[in-house]
Amino acid sequence: VTSICLPDAEARDCVGTLPGGIDVVIWDGASDPVPGLDGVEVLVPPYMRPPTSAEALKALASLRLVQLLSAGVDSWLKRLPPGVVLCNGRGVHGGSTAELAVGGIVSSLRELPRHLDAQRAHRWDQHSGVTGLDGRRVLLLGAGDIGTRVAASLTPLGAEVTLVARHARDGVRALTELSGLLPEHQVVVIAVPYTTETHQLVDADFLASMPDGALLVNVARGAIVNTNALLAELTSERLHAFLDVTDPEPLPVDHPLWVAPHLQLTPHIGGGTLGWQQRAYRLVREQVIRFHRGEPLQNVVKVADGY
Amino acid sequence: VTSICLPDAEARDCVGTLPGGIDVVIWDGASDPVPGLDGVEVLVPPYMRPPTSAEALKALASLRLVQLLSAGVDSWLKRLPPGVVLCNGRGVHGGSTAELAVGGIVSSLRELPRHLDAQRAHRWDQHSGVTGLDGRRVLLLGAGDIGTRVAASLTPLGAEVTLVARHARDGVRALTELSGLLPEHQVVVIAVPYTTETHQLVDADFLASMPDGALLVNVARGAIVNTNALLAELTSERLHAFLDVTDPEPLPVDHPLWVAPHLQLTPHIGGGTLGWQQRAYRLVREQVIRFHRGEPLQNVVKVADGY
Repeated sequence: VTSICLPDAEARDCVGTLPGGIDVVIWDGASDPVPGLDGVEVLVPPYMRPPTSAEALKALASLRLVQLLSAGVDSWLKRLPPGVVLCNGRGVHGGSTAELAVGGIVSSLRELPRHLDAQRAHRWDQHSGVTGLDGRRVLLLGAGDIGTRVAASLTPLGAEVTLVARHARDGVRALTELSGLLPEHQVVVIAVPYTTETHQLVDADFLASMPDGALLVNVARGAIVNTNALLAELTSERLHAFLDVTDPEPLPVDHPLWVAPHLQLTPHIGGGTLGWQQRAYRLVREQVIRFHRGEPLQNVVKVADGY
Repeated sequence: VTSICLPDAEARDCVGTLPGGIDVVIWDGASDPVPGLDGVEVLVPPYMRPPTSAEALKALASLRLVQLLSAGVDSWLKRLPPGVVLCNGRGVHGGSTAELAVGGIVSSLRELPRHLDAQRAHRWDQHSGVTGLDGRRVLLLGAGDIGTRVAASLTPLGAEVTLVARHARDGVRALTELSGLLPEHQVVVIAVPYTTETHQLVDADFLASMPDGALLVNVARGAIVNTNALLAELTSERLHAFLDVTDPEPLPVDHPLWVAPHLQLTPHIGGGTLGWQQRAYRLVREQVIRFHRGEPLQNVVKVADGY
């Protein structure tokens, strides 16, 4: 028998009928431990909640796999007990996060906020001199699910897209080439995982390499960007930005980012559109069945020792 | 010798060096006729300006081809002297118009105006319950340059796209199937030419066939939509809309569309982003050389008798 732990009854409904030999325990990872946790091998924590504490994890004496519902895994990486495999929700939020990046680029380049103000003022303000994506070069940092979706979506709009990842491969440039690539691109989209390697990757030097008037889009994690360095470039009106994630997060009411010019801000809403639960629990269901049958897992982010 | 007429000196610069045997006259199609017009065979009128009057066209006694810089040709269709071929700027604005449609869809579905208000109020308002494109069905009316670009851009974001055109072909449904298709799609994008056939195509019946909460996007021509019928559906908060074009246009300051709920409005800015001139005059240049050499023309919209 394989025992799995789901965060709530809604999750249990979404997962649907499971093959015989798979038992389900309901626990949200934060409240007091419930009976049966000591036998749980697969933990599915709630979406976008702080990770289960080390103390609470102790109740999961048989834990072998943590299956997240998010693409980002940074808050869990150091929480994992030895021997536990970490898998993410790659593909679950890819569409909605990529969509927000694409919409953010268009909204910024085509000045949709300015048009909204004109609409509210009943003003037909057909200003010109705006630059669209056609013929523009877009640098995509991250060639995973989100990055490749954004690239595929922008190309038919006339953009020339360059994908960058840790290691070069066919159609993907290496992160080490970044300093040469940045000056040639008018739009940069951040869609890399947050790791020690990408912490503050977008620093003052990175931003200084972007050409005048370029647009930075971050739909990954706030701390990949040095907030003060970006603030300086926005305040001097040299760069534009669309941020779905910030550092800190949530942004305090008196934070200077709120009033920075040429910035559009959304409150970390990239994933989590309606329907994500269906996609997420389809993945959970498949993963649990794979685990139960001893088949290779998908979306493995970190293979702990001993698996 | 082939004589062509360009709207201004900037256009002349953009077209660049032309082969011997092609002469250029500069005239904007509106001011008093200039010397040499009687020999002009190819007329390139200015972008987004009312068509040259029938009276002014009389000066062009040798006219055989009108090459527009826009995708839309509706304002010229009935102005053509007999025997004159009409060509449009297909491809010139396709990227920027498709981009605005895609951005408009994302801005509407993901409620970017609401997030802009929250940003201006320094409020981190992470509301959920919003529906993105992933798993949504999008109906694209028009399978030309703009429609196919929008379709290609939305598909990687998880949307299921159905293309509709006058005649069914591989991957494209026929306009006659519309009433059956509308109830199954949550987003409808209008990207068809404005003709007698598409005038008021989006009427009360069309809109009534769209499901509750569906989004109508119009980046084609305002009069394809019955404004009053749309106003009724917006006011009752049953449908949402993103309109780059309206009927009438420009919208008078007291028009009810300005204050309709669930509507985002831009002032016919689909085409005309920076860089369009380069694309447009590359097309003009190629077309003029084709005409001069007696080769088949591209982007022919209407072949008048006698060509």
